[in-house]
Amino acid sequence: MLSLRTVITTKNLGLTRSLMGISMRYSSTLKNVAATGPAPKLTTSDLNPYVRSAKYAVRGRIPAKAEELKKQLASDPSSLPFKKVINANIGNPQQLDQQPLSFYRRVLALIEDPELLSNKTVISTFPKDVVKRAQELLECVKSVGAYSNSQGISVARKHVAEYISKRDGYPSNADDIFLTAGASTAVQYLIQLLSNGPKTGFLIPIPQYPLYTAAIALNNTVPLPYYLQEEQDWSVDSDEIVGVIEKAISQGIKPRCLVVINPGNPTGAILKHEALAKLFQVAAKYGILVIADEVYQENVYRGEFVSAKKVLRDIQTTDKSGFYDNVQLASLHSTSKGLSGECGHRGGYMELVGLDPSVKAELLKLASISLCGPVTGQSLVSLMVNPPHKGEESYDLDQQQRRKVYNDLATRAKKLYESFNEMEGASCRNPMGAMYCFPKLELPEKAIAEAKKQNMTPDTFYAEQLLLNTGICTVPGSGFGQKEGTYHVRTTFLPPGTQWVDDWKKFQSKFMKEFS
Amino acid sequence: MLSLRTVITTKNLGLTRSLMGISMRYSSTLKNVAATGPAPKLTTSDLNPYVRSAKYAVRGRIPAKAEELKKQLASDPSSLPFKKVINANIGNPQQLDQQPLSFYRRVLALIEDPELLSNKTVISTFPKDVVKRAQELLECVKSVGAYSNSQGISVARKHVAEYISKRDGYPSNADDIFLTAGASTAVQYLIQLLSNGPKTGFLIPIPQYPLYTAAIALNNTVPLPYYLQEEQDWSVDSDEIVGVIEKAISQGIKPRCLVVINPGNPTGAILKHEALAKLFQVAAKYGILVIADEVYQENVYRGEFVSAKKVLRDIQTTDKSGFYDNVQLASLHSTSKGLSGECGHRGGYMELVGLDPSVKAELLKLASISLCGPVTGQSLVSLMVNPPHKGEESYDLDQQQRRKVYNDLATRAKKLYESFNEMEGASCRNPMGAMYCFPKLELPEKAIAEAKKQNMTPDTFYAEQLLLNTGICTVPGSGFGQKEGTYHVRTTFLPPGTQWVDDWKKFQSKFMKEFS
Repeated sequence: MLSLRTVITTKNLGLTRSLMGISMRYSSTLKNVAATGPAPKLTTSDLNPYVRSAKYAVRGRIPAKAEELKKQLASDPSSLPFKKVINANIGNPQQLDQQPLSFYRRVLALIEDPELLSNKTVISTFPKDVVKRAQELLECVKSVGAYSNSQGISVARKHVAEYISKRDGYPSNADDIFLTAGASTAVQYLIQLLSNGPKTGFLIPIPQYPLYTAAIALNNTVPLPYYLQEEQDWSVDSDEIVGVIEKAISQGIKPRCLVVINPGNPTGAILKHEALAKLFQVAAKYGILVIADEVYQENVYRGEFVSAKKVLRDIQTTDKSGFYDNVQLASLHSTSKGLSGECGHRGGYMELVGLDPSVKAELLKLASISLCGPVTGQSLVSLMVNPPHKGEESYDLDQQQRRKVYNDLATRAKKLYESFNEMEGASCRNPMGAMYCFPKLELPEKAIAEAKKQNMTPDTFYAEQLLLNTGICTVPGSGFGQKEGTYHVRTTFLPPGTQWVDDWKKFQSKFMKEFS
Repeated sequence: MLSLRTVITTKNLGLTRSLMGISMRYSSTLKNVAATGPAPKLTTSDLNPYVRSAKYAVRGRIPAKAEELKKQLASDPSSLPFKKVINANIGNPQQLDQQPLSFYRRVLALIEDPELLSNKTVISTFPKDVVKRAQELLECVKSVGAYSNSQGISVARKHVAEYISKRDGYPSNADDIFLTAGASTAVQYLIQLLSNGPKTGFLIPIPQYPLYTAAIALNNTVPLPYYLQEEQDWSVDSDEIVGVIEKAISQGIKPRCLVVINPGNPTGAILKHEALAKLFQVAAKYGILVIADEVYQENVYRGEFVSAKKVLRDIQTTDKSGFYDNVQLASLHSTSKGLSGECGHRGGYMELVGLDPSVKAELLKLASISLCGPVTGQSLVSLMVNPPHKGEESYDLDQQQRRKVYNDLATRAKKLYESFNEMEGASCRNPMGAMYCFPKLELPEKAIAEAKKQNMTPDTFYAEQLLLNTGICTVPGSGFGQKEGTYHVRTTFLPPGTQWVDDWKKFQSKFMKEFS
């Protein structure tokens, strides 16, 4: 160590002497500088190793290839065996068919341009409840061009607390609500906050949304995977989780956080009350903070969504011993999913339950370094959790638009599910919620060998073949994690129509024939 | 280490046995669980030490106190020696007097609610260039509710590249432009990307905007402060920088990045062409990436702003030796400052000059983990760099509004500067740009002793006294860094009117009398 330093020092002191000379010569002649030679450019080996090791498959290799194909189609439309790339790789509804809800956008237009409120001709064309909501928001924020409080605008936090109270039947406090730039920002704050050295463990479901493994990698901490049970509709086995925790502890790792994605991404599963209660039992026992990623809470096609907060309050009420008093929960929601699909607005919130005030203060400081989330996104959170009420002018249209979004999603979910189960070499659990199918693929040995030859995982090879033959862009299961020796892809059910699903079916039989 | 692990394991295996038992009993009876006892809550000592050590004074102690006083005034308006809190602590123009530019907001209203475009009554009230710009943006983004490409929407990147080309007289490429959620996000990405272990050094000016020290702390790397020369209008001494670099290298630290804030925050200084050229000489020599934080490039009241990019291209053109070929620069801009003041929209960009494509790819991956910046903020970037042109319908009003914003800022800057220099015990450099004065305070010994007694830095004590007596909220100089033994506060010149400045003057003579 000492000798290395000495080498660096000696070498650079030499440089200094010449640089100092140059520095003084500089103003008279710039040309003489070159004599001492410049330093090379930075390369990836100079960069943060945790950034380098982080992966984010949703925008990885296959989507990048799809972008190339789009460009190729634009310049030569008949050069590929399909006319159009189908972006089934990302839950981005308004990139595809889904229309924004008019109520949201009308209010947002008025808060962007408050001069419209005093233009009688214009304002008479707006529903009265839209005008009222715009005025309420403007009264709180003054201007959407001003930074808000780092925790978020008060009117939206109040509406969120009211929404949660009504949803769960237990009180929620606006002081416990943090507005964030989508749920992704909340996840990143929480994982960063809890990352107390490289032995910090985060329990994450496998398969998972890759933001979690990426954030864990960025913070140089340890993912502790627990496997969802595909055969039991991707359910959670809390006994397995206890085993994972014990093994981690025996290796000197401190499990600090348990992530639950409910409804599941990419699985589409919905967890039952009892399953969540068991997770809280584990959390209480080991002092593990639970992150409940509930961004798909409105995307429920079969069964019922019960929030983690409600389950926690239920068991805290039932159990009088105080066993659950210390449980800490952060539950997340977003304007990007549900029936809103407003990804580009970057709105979201987290509710913090049972956290020590000093821990909340550190979270607030972390948020304040980034100043605040976009104020229009924060306003949208307020509209999402407090949509038009029965009897208000916007109510009927809003309901009608929500029904259409819902029905389109439910119809396509069913179509996709049925199609996968009709395909040779594919099977799929019936999605209960969210926006995704995660079909299991029985890849033939020949396909696996070919993938190996091309230096790809077998699921990546499959996803690439699917893309190259049909234009359908999915994400390989390895991007989310899957049991060793099993192969999946994630597809959204957002692309319009059903033609692409039929194309996939045709591709599947061709693929199976070719590699059998 | 081994023995500690053994202890943890044994202890927790005990817990497991009972927990496993509970787990099985759970469904029949929840009440029995308590017997084994819950784990305690997390406290700050369990959290990420780098988050704990990070500081962000702009929203620190004094602003927090100001929020308390606001609440007190709301419930009891005559309980304090002032009627109103004056937020001079943060560059948040629209929180105060500054009105948004109508052109921006009209376009944003139309892209939020594109149905307005097909409503003839309404759309006839909008200027034609506003309609055209809204259509152009919608054509690119499809919907502002869709996630964009992680690098940002193409139309805004194209406009930014055109703006830079015109500003500097050198070409700029849209592929080198990254849109970010304000410049803060760009700074955080860059510092995270470059943080290759705890021996990575970041050269930062002192005083600095505290985002830099916060981001360095969060990444557990080393700040390498270089002092701005207050007596020379806060100029940069590149010989001092070379000294700092050499000292760091001799301690085994790798200086990887040099931050320049121009126009300066909190200093208000503007760097000359020659000063920037000297910094690039140092950067070329040591392979140091330059971050040019140029968010105040429109806020110029005296002298001339020259961009770092232009200076770099100038010296690369003049010097044919190739000495400057490897220089790497990231220059930042934002919609939050300038004449726009659209902080709440979280819009910004960085231009990457000379970076290796593999390094850019890692940056793009980092950005893609957070998906994208708010699409309305990205749209606003496009409007900021490409405002109405002469002859277009919005041009005259836009110019008039810009002039008003500019004149208000320039007038208040002058008033503040003159006032500080009239005060006993205060002096201030004449601000050339940005939104801040950073007056130097000659605090009496008695005040310093009183601060010590109250366990505060002397400048914090002064800022608190100023707040408690006048309602004026500033940030103590220690939040930005200052030469040992000197004391400053940062004040914006955004609060309307001049009464508050007169109040400050009165406070100053009272304070000096009391502590002399």
